[in-house]
Amino acid sequence: MTLLFCSTSDNADRWVGELRKRAPNLEVRVWPEMGDPAEIDYALVWKPPHGLLAGLPNLKLIVSLGAGVEALLLDPTLPQVPLVRMVTDGLTLDMAGYVAMQVLRWERKLDAYAELQKAGRWEPLGHRPASEVGIGILGLGELGVASARTLASMDYRVMGWSRSPKTVSGVESFTGEEGLHAMLGQSDLLVCLLPLTEDTRDILNAELFARLPKGAVVINAARGGHLAEADLIPAIDRGHLAGASLDVFADEPLPPGHPFWAHPRIHVTPHIAGITHPSRAAETVVEAIRLFEAGQPLKNVVDRAKGY
Amino acid sequence: MTLLFCSTSDNADRWVGELRKRAPNLEVRVWPEMGDPAEIDYALVWKPPHGLLAGLPNLKLIVSLGAGVEALLLDPTLPQVPLVRMVTDGLTLDMAGYVAMQVLRWERKLDAYAELQKAGRWEPLGHRPASEVGIGILGLGELGVASARTLASMDYRVMGWSRSPKTVSGVESFTGEEGLHAMLGQSDLLVCLLPLTEDTRDILNAELFARLPKGAVVINAARGGHLAEADLIPAIDRGHLAGASLDVFADEPLPPGHPFWAHPRIHVTPHIAGITHPSRAAETVVEAIRLFEAGQPLKNVVDRAKGY
Repeated sequence: MTLLFCSTSDNADRWVGELRKRAPNLEVRVWPEMGDPAEIDYALVWKPPHGLLAGLPNLKLIVSLGAGVEALLLDPTLPQVPLVRMVTDGLTLDMAGYVAMQVLRWERKLDAYAELQKAGRWEPLGHRPASEVGIGILGLGELGVASARTLASMDYRVMGWSRSPKTVSGVESFTGEEGLHAMLGQSDLLVCLLPLTEDTRDILNAELFARLPKGAVVINAARGGHLAEADLIPAIDRGHLAGASLDVFADEPLPPGHPFWAHPRIHVTPHIAGITHPSRAAETVVEAIRLFEAGQPLKNVVDRAKGY
Repeated sequence: MTLLFCSTSDNADRWVGELRKRAPNLEVRVWPEMGDPAEIDYALVWKPPHGLLAGLPNLKLIVSLGAGVEALLLDPTLPQVPLVRMVTDGLTLDMAGYVAMQVLRWERKLDAYAELQKAGRWEPLGHRPASEVGIGILGLGELGVASARTLASMDYRVMGWSRSPKTVSGVESFTGEEGLHAMLGQSDLLVCLLPLTEDTRDILNAELFARLPKGAVVINAARGGHLAEADLIPAIDRGHLAGASLDVFADEPLPPGHPFWAHPRIHVTPHIAGITHPSRAAETVVEAIRLFEAGQPLKNVVDRAKGY
């Protein structure tokens, strides 16, 4: 059994080490040194060059290093073998931590207190009780549900919008366009955790912002393609939105000189909200291969028609 | 029925409004305008002047506006009537939010990313999976348990130290001096949520810091008296501690020129971790009075020997 690892943004050495610990019989090759393409059975990839996977004649299974697979699906030559996306506890809970951190930094005024500290000023600013703060989550998949649970544990009023109705304890569920509008009107903070599809591209746009209460905050931890970037700064600068926390961007790395870098009400992080930690995720990869070899049903197989 | 409200750090107007909504028959007087002291049945107080309560001959019950009552117990003239401390969902969950925010700001490198943004630099710094991060909580009362639950929901490895063993799902319990030392050795972050008593004063000192792993972070959201202030900066500056987040101080407001203000690895907030929101807490006060009037057992009565 041979697996090809291909990613320029994950640590190949750590991945190889963690995989070998768990599957000593699995030979792991790190692209671009892949030897005979006909020997590759499995591929573990993040944004591989288009055509790379099509050149592996005996490929049986593709595992994505991330939860979002829209970049992979843009490769028109992608082989029609099962495609599994990465959904691990580590990634999911990482995301819940990132979302909680961004919600709290805004609600509990972390940045304002940091400024006051610089000025040597003791000035309690007050804050709303969490139970009076509405948080709308776009997308109630694994990531949305984990984030919703953590926020609900702190007493925030959590709402979630998804394609099909979901039952999550302590979370009010909304669906459809009408449901979206109802949720937006009550969302003091709006968190995007949707998959990126033709339906969700540019969903965070001027029209959506206008439906949020004045002073709302937008947090995007999904994909840069969800945000109509040109609409954000005007909504903040005219005072309708209080600001935004963005982990993902249309172009990554966010280009030098992009206006998001210098905007005082936009917090930029470099796509670190949900990291696939090798120590936590290698088991998932090995399990997918074991299930495949045993002819058993795989978990988290991508529905290519839906895009996730 | 007449209640005296006495606090210089809570909003009297909001408290009076919230109490009247719930108990129209309760007359609320705001110190120092208290009229005839013999008419006062109940007192709702935060740091009242020593002797004030002793001057109320018909006082039946004291309710503290905060969860910590050590300042009240320092008044040698404090009347021997039941003393109830404020434990409300609002305060407790506020605290859990503050603790989560401080843990995440350190673990997820919020301040480092803010610096990188100022420099226009896209540089993922990596972070440990939450499951590999040990968090020790000193004190497993209402506040400690709520914080533990929120941190556990994000997959942090949560431990708690308390006088008597506690059973909290997903939290490893430690007691006694041996238990304290065992927990400290595994605490990448240490959170203090203890009551302030003679046993816990100055517990955060050089000897305790030395038992923490190198690079640990100390978070104090309990009372300034828990921290031996002179020990903190040396432990950070010689590189043993990564830093600290402090919400409480020996002298509040933290005096101008105090070295904590300007230290780059100490985050100062002005005692805002747990706020008693009138809209959330007025019901607790009214309920305490109702229980007292009905001769029923009160909740959260202070054991004056223990000090909490």
